[in-house]
Amino acid sequence: MVSDQIDIKTNWLDPTALDQVRGQVPLVYVDAVPVRVDDMGQVTSVGMLLRQAPDGSISRTVVSGRVLLGERIREALLRHLEKDLGPLALPNIPPEPAPFTVVEYFPDPTISGFHDPRHHAVSLAFVVPVSGDCQPSQQALDLGWFSPEQAVSEHMRKEMTSGHDRLIRLALASVGQLP
Amino acid sequence: MVSDQIDIKTNWLDPTALDQVRGQVPLVYVDAVPVRVDDMGQVTSVGMLLRQAPDGSISRTVVSGRVLLGERIREALLRHLEKDLGPLALPNIPPEPAPFTVVEYFPDPTISGFHDPRHHAVSLAFVVPVSGDCQPSQQALDLGWFSPEQAVSEHMRKEMTSGHDRLIRLALASVGQLP
Amino acid sequence: MVSDQIDIKTNWLDPTALDQVRGQVPLVYVDAVPVRVDDMGQVTSVGMLLRQAPDGSISRTVVSGRVLLGERIREALLRHLEKDLGPLALPNIPPEPAPFTVVEYFPDPTISGFHDPRHHAVSLAFVVPVSGDCQPSQQALDLGWFSPEQAVSEHMRKEMTSGHDRLIRLALASVGQLP
Amino acid sequence: MVSDQIDIKTNWLDPTALDQVRGQVPLVYVDAVPVRVDDMGQVTSVGMLLRQAPDGSISRTVVSGRVLLGERIREALLRHLEKDLGPLALPNIPPEPAPFTVVEYFPDPTISGFHDPRHHAVSLAFVVPVSGDCQPSQQALDLGWFSPEQAVSEHMRKEMTSGHDRLIRLALASVGQLP
Repeated sequence: MVSDQIDIKTNWLDPTALDQVRGQVPLVYVDAVPVRVDDMGQVTSVGMLLRQAPDGSISRTVVSGRVLLGERIREALLRHLEKDLGPLALPNIPPEPAPFTVVEYFPDPTISGFHDPRHHAVSLAFVVPVSGDCQPSQQALDLGWFSPEQAVSEHMRKEMTSGHDRLIRLALASVGQLP
Repeated sequence: MVSDQIDIKTNWLDPTALDQVRGQVPLVYVDAVPVRVDDMGQVTSVGMLLRQAPDGSISRTVVSGRVLLGERIREALLRHLEKDLGPLALPNIPPEPAPFTVVEYFPDPTISGFHDPRHHAVSLAFVVPVSGDCQPSQQALDLGWFSPEQAVSEHMRKEMTSGHDRLIRLALASVGQLP
Repeated sequence: MVSDQIDIKTNWLDPTALDQVRGQVPLVYVDAVPVRVDDMGQVTSVGMLLRQAPDGSISRTVVSGRVLLGERIREALLRHLEKDLGPLALPNIPPEPAPFTVVEYFPDPTISGFHDPRHHAVSLAFVVPVSGDCQPSQQALDLGWFSPEQAVSEHMRKEMTSGHDRLIRLALASVGQLP
Repeated sequence: MVSDQIDIKTNWLDPTALDQVRGQVPLVYVDAVPVRVDDMGQVTSVGMLLRQAPDGSISRTVVSGRVLLGERIREALLRHLEKDLGPLALPNIPPEPAPFTVVEYFPDPTISGFHDPRHHAVSLAFVVPVSGDCQPSQQALDLGWFSPEQAVSEHMRKEMTSGHDRLIRLALASVGQLP
């Protein structure tokens, strides 16, 4: 996953060490669902990244990544949002520290329905309104904006893996926009 | 209270009718605590209005007002924020419909600790980041910005009535900034 | 609706007065979604009432009712839960005053998707675990318990009106059990 | 800290390995604030453990501990509650996966105000009503129940370290009982 390669560039943890840690403790993650809102704060559309996995498969995902040692949750959110949406996205990170849900990713997809083949991760999930110009980074093939109806459609569900389709539904529910 | 006079201007309910309703059902209110946030969404200061009550007393208050018949909660929030902070305040009304707390105001201050001599009101309370230029309306004498420490100080507590000092503490707690 | 008849018995508001109030202000309501949980707090099933409307139609509903003048939200929740589920239901009303969502019912179903032909109501919605023996009151024909999958199935959606199918999905999302 | 010794007994991670991991990634923790509630769910008292730290100092704490590899958040909550309050405490773990706040503990107490000399931990904090008989385990010297007023008093604040006094205030605010 791209986020780890970038973390490596900051020399926080090399791949061998990270692999070892993955076999010892759950990792702390953040998931961010970017949204557009109207002037009354109502969500009008949801942003989803189109990404190619190492195995060549393509899927729709949310912004997601690891929290580093010594890093605040807010810093990790801002870092991953800027990395995936570009420096001009102008995210309005919510003032509340509490996420709208906690997603537990396991290598075994039957435990929670959320799946990560690499490790057990506990992810704090936030809905983040963005008001600026989003430019998906080179790792993402595309960033698309979808209405709540489109975002939960059968068509979109099939383009998502790891339980991200369910995460989108939970996110839309938290903002009262689940169809 | 000023909000009711303004409601009257829209002819939604005249004072006699409102007085009668107050003796029959609880009213729906919204309370908004305006805040400034940094680029990671962390609350750096809290805005409080200085107001003169009909009896001449002066106190610090939050933005507060009635929800009208047929009005969405979001519309009421935007209307009261614009009325109290001016049209250039640029409030970021949260996308979630759930308030951070529900405040129950009663004519009897011993019931909940939140007091309104006029009526029983159920108020949905929101923390609202504002990014624009705030110009308190003519009904407010002043709008001051205070750090979380100042906002919960003994000095400020004495300037607040109706339990609004407690509401400020609940608001700061919801954003993790209660000292 | 039955709850109002019961309110009338307590002499809080007669039908004529209530009709008049409905044309003047939004009413305060509570909605409660009864659930069964396992010993780790995870929701295993959702309770839904089967009710006959005044027009003879039958539909699945949640526990719902008006908050009376002078009544605390918690008192209203307990009163309506006991009225609909019987005195032995042993509801665990959540300690938090904030609802998981706020439902805005309007006579016009296009405004929010939540519909009440009688009036504009602002309803605070809570998920309430019940651990006791539920005996639906005489006004309800039945109380059924359904798994999350059943509760959001097409079949069940067709048995619900007023947007209650959507409320069930929002409730299940708030507890992380939306399929 | 006791929880880690117990984790060791399950052979999940030996002390040397844990020390190494602490220098590489933030750990996932849960904090639970045990409360007593009345039949309407309103918090009437807060439970706090009296504990002796390895350096011999005594302080009041909440229930707290690590989430193990492969363990659900709910399992960790139940395990730590039973370990600290005994097997008859009958905790009502909330159905929502979202914590009321997220506490970020750092070895440097100036970063967030929450302090753990051993490591960076991200803790999901929950208010947990307990209805049974609490028997503090051998590692705790005592379990005391305090009213909200007592729990936030100057006297109690002095008995708490690591920012736990602030966590208690945040917990009481989330249930609307912060004085």
